[in-house]
Amino acid sequence: MFLKNCWYVAAWDHEVLADNLLQRTLLGESVLLYRTEDGKPVAMDNRCCHRHAPLHMGRKEGDCVRCMYHGLKYDSSGKCIEIPGQDVIPPKFGQRVYPTVQLRRWIWIWMGDPEKADESLIPNTFAMEHPDWRWSPSYLLYKSNYLYICDNLLDFSHLSYVHEKTLGGSPNIAESRPEVTRLPRGVRVSRPVRNTVPAPYHMRLGSFPGEVDRWFKYDFVVPGVLILDSGLKSSGLADDDFSDALCFQSCQALTPETETSTHYFFMLAHGFRLDDAVVTESVTQSQRAAFIEDKTMIEAQQQMIDNSPAKPMMPIACDLGLTQFRRVLQEMMDAEGAAASPSTDASGAGPMRVLHISKETT
Amino acid sequence: MFLKNCWYVAAWDHEVLADNLLQRTLLGESVLLYRTEDGKPVAMDNRCCHRHAPLHMGRKEGDCVRCMYHGLKYDSSGKCIEIPGQDVIPPKFGQRVYPTVQLRRWIWIWMGDPEKADESLIPNTFAMEHPDWRWSPSYLLYKSNYLYICDNLLDFSHLSYVHEKTLGGSPNIAESRPEVTRLPRGVRVSRPVRNTVPAPYHMRLGSFPGEVDRWFKYDFVVPGVLILDSGLKSSGLADDDFSDALCFQSCQALTPETETSTHYFFMLAHGFRLDDAVVTESVTQSQRAAFIEDKTMIEAQQQMIDNSPAKPMMPIACDLGLTQFRRVLQEMMDAEGAAASPSTDASGAGPMRVLHISKETT
Amino acid sequence: MFLKNCWYVAAWDHEVLADNLLQRTLLGESVLLYRTEDGKPVAMDNRCCHRHAPLHMGRKEGDCVRCMYHGLKYDSSGKCIEIPGQDVIPPKFGQRVYPTVQLRRWIWIWMGDPEKADESLIPNTFAMEHPDWRWSPSYLLYKSNYLYICDNLLDFSHLSYVHEKTLGGSPNIAESRPEVTRLPRGVRVSRPVRNTVPAPYHMRLGSFPGEVDRWFKYDFVVPGVLILDSGLKSSGLADDDFSDALCFQSCQALTPETETSTHYFFMLAHGFRLDDAVVTESVTQSQRAAFIEDKTMIEAQQQMIDNSPAKPMMPIACDLGLTQFRRVLQEMMDAEGAAASPSTDASGAGPMRVLHISKETT
Repeated sequence: MFLKNCWYVAAWDHEVLADNLLQRTLLGESVLLYRTEDGKPVAMDNRCCHRHAPLHMGRKEGDCVRCMYHGLKYDSSGKCIEIPGQDVIPPKFGQRVYPTVQLRRWIWIWMGDPEKADESLIPNTFAMEHPDWRWSPSYLLYKSNYLYICDNLLDFSHLSYVHEKTLGGSPNIAESRPEVTRLPRGVRVSRPVRNTVPAPYHMRLGSFPGEVDRWFKYDFVVPGVLILDSGLKSSGLADDDFSDALCFQSCQALTPETETSTHYFFMLAHGFRLDDAVVTESVTQSQRAAFIEDKTMIEAQQQMIDNSPAKPMMPIACDLGLTQFRRVLQEMMDAEGAAASPSTDASGAGPMRVLHISKETT
Repeated sequence: MFLKNCWYVAAWDHEVLADNLLQRTLLGESVLLYRTEDGKPVAMDNRCCHRHAPLHMGRKEGDCVRCMYHGLKYDSSGKCIEIPGQDVIPPKFGQRVYPTVQLRRWIWIWMGDPEKADESLIPNTFAMEHPDWRWSPSYLLYKSNYLYICDNLLDFSHLSYVHEKTLGGSPNIAESRPEVTRLPRGVRVSRPVRNTVPAPYHMRLGSFPGEVDRWFKYDFVVPGVLILDSGLKSSGLADDDFSDALCFQSCQALTPETETSTHYFFMLAHGFRLDDAVVTESVTQSQRAAFIEDKTMIEAQQQMIDNSPAKPMMPIACDLGLTQFRRVLQEMMDAEGAAASPSTDASGAGPMRVLHISKETT
Repeated sequence: MFLKNCWYVAAWDHEVLADNLLQRTLLGESVLLYRTEDGKPVAMDNRCCHRHAPLHMGRKEGDCVRCMYHGLKYDSSGKCIEIPGQDVIPPKFGQRVYPTVQLRRWIWIWMGDPEKADESLIPNTFAMEHPDWRWSPSYLLYKSNYLYICDNLLDFSHLSYVHEKTLGGSPNIAESRPEVTRLPRGVRVSRPVRNTVPAPYHMRLGSFPGEVDRWFKYDFVVPGVLILDSGLKSSGLADDDFSDALCFQSCQALTPETETSTHYFFMLAHGFRLDDAVVTESVTQSQRAAFIEDKTMIEAQQQMIDNSPAKPMMPIACDLGLTQFRRVLQEMMDAEGAAASPSTDASGAGPMRVLHISKETT
């Protein structure tokens, strides 16, 4: 079970081109993504209402799509406008179309009540279109429930261990205490790490003769979007002296594919040496390599949980962020279940899973 | 759940040779197929009654087969005639043997009540042994329930879309109205398509300067056997003038392997240029290429249905043939369930699936 | 369901080296195996109590292991001795550690009540450390329930069929009558086969001009450990004349990985030409080749049973050994269920499976 009334990232803009029909499973539903002639993204139920053949195996005809099993044709509002061999088209024929917004390189989709689709709820991924930042886009499919990836992102102590040789570099990160504050739709985390060493990947980007201070400041909001300000500079400089700093911005979004697999859209932007394409590529590949370390660990964790579902987890201090976030998520899912959709009621599997784990970690 | 008292195609004759033991799962049951010394096909429960080892891993000894786990030996009637290390063979030891008939290249099997196995019920696949027709045999395994393939064969409007570039060639087929009449054990369909274009594969076989008339006339009978008369000739010729016609006969048989996979035995015979082996090969390969188009679409449809089992289908006019056929099948399964086998009762999964879908399309 | 209060083989000694962390699933539980600095084997629950990340992806630090997800550290008794970012370690933090014994090349594990772990219950695999015997170690993973492999080992009549061209050589083995006696924790089987031929693999090891006598004497004890004395010599020699004999000792141990897969640890020692490495390798490879014949048959049997769970098996005379052994096992599981663990009660799936089959073969 997933939160429905929420914007999810459906795709990178470059994944949906003028002439392709992209199939992507989102929250367990098969969705067709394509663009109208004027470039507007369309997200449509991919199952033809006639015999459930997949529309992404169909044909784009102008702003419309035709099912290539028996030829039914739909316009971009989902309305059926042709049934071969039949003159009358009953009004019930048609496809569900989901609200979409293209904003700063991501195509967002709203899979809940269309009436509630408020664009102002889309998180501000400003670095993805601001000239002060350079980056390349990345994507991975994790074979795990999205909540275990949320957990990972809500506790950066794992950088010291999972990413010891990439993004981490020292146990200092795990030893530092994060400050976690609650937001209306998520949590805000600040985790300064003073008098430490640069991460291994920093070594390729700059030189620091002595100790450094690192910082991680981020908002993590429903359904699973991270907006991160991070970096490092030499220890001992004044708070407003960034003369030797390496500053980064990262936007990351998790969208459940199914209960056991997750789309992960991410980027890491650098705010220095903007015209050096090698830096952009190095930063992108460093992040990607580290996320494959996460993927390996989280998928192994998912397998262990699958094989021992009944064993409880034991909470520790560094779980504070993920505990808070799961509470926010659970409250929103409870509210949604009560207000609108019985299928998201707290008696369902998803919310119970959330409750189950959040209680453990409380 | 499947109709039991019915002839199914178990194999092409050339698949069961003098010296091999063929294992094939039919209607969910593992069946051993082999031949006695005089060439008669034998179909036997493949699970040795002792410890359920598979007999197809055994050894053919004359007309008998020996299990090569612990050595039990069975004759072609299924009777156990040797138990190593034991002098007395209790009469209950033995294997179920299914009635079989070899007729016109296909080996037919009866998996229901042997008392009811009436050879006259076998459909007349005359083209498979008549000198006026030339052809080569084909086989594919589909990863879908056999009913979705029946549906496909009962509505040729899909030729315009799935087979646009192979067997189709024009939306005219989908636009034409078929005439569907009910038979005792299936349906008869006639679908003339006048003043149209040849299919792409016809282009390799003949030349037609102007418009053509095409015809499709077939019987589709339980459990899923198609006997098709099809072809084309120039438009405007008298009804009995076949001077430039290309005439075809096709026999096709569906046999469920499991609830989610289907054996498909098929051939397409040409009635012209009988001595040209290139024509035979071209016709065979054209049909095979087209059936792989069907397979791709139907397996994708099956996956969509698996992932959204609760969504109803929406019937259209061209579903007439498949709706009629499912009614025939359901009535026969209901009768079978009431008369003989509680496991085929309408409360079981299979009949309900049939009912469910036939109601949708009514 | 498995017998818990019993020693199982967890690994060959050479599989757990000074510096590796070995993950192995035993009885459905993921277990971490490693050695302390002084070489003592440690078997620990592989799921970190914090977030269930696998410890085998962690780091060995002296006698301890650190989880490399969030850095929790455990000593070899399973006690948690470090939680990064947290000063106090609540006493409930820690990992279950299983009793282990390294004895004659095998590492044994006790997965039931540690209080009952009595080393004197470990079967005497003397040939694995006695200078009169030479051998090499082997291992295979079978995709079948361990009981079907027990069955196989409790009825050597299969040598005549499964191993016709390797360990068998004649139907005489199947025709001979074994003597089966019950032991407190298993059965003892003696199966002399007189006036027969050598097995094919014997031909590579010695020459026998005439008929031979073969013998198979073994104990098979819970959970599934075989101690076998076998060999052959020329027929007609006095009972105590072993002048041309080829004598073998074999130790074999089955450990369930899951309900449908089994670890198989085995060796076959020769008591002749001790300094000829070619003989050792030939004997080892002959056994391995034969066990792959078993594996093929038993995995096929498992698949047949999976696909037809309801069909009963039909007992024959040569099932005597396996029937007796299943009775012993069932009684021990019943006792265990009553005394200690409700999860091994006879109403569970495992014991019922045992009962079900043992009744069939009674």
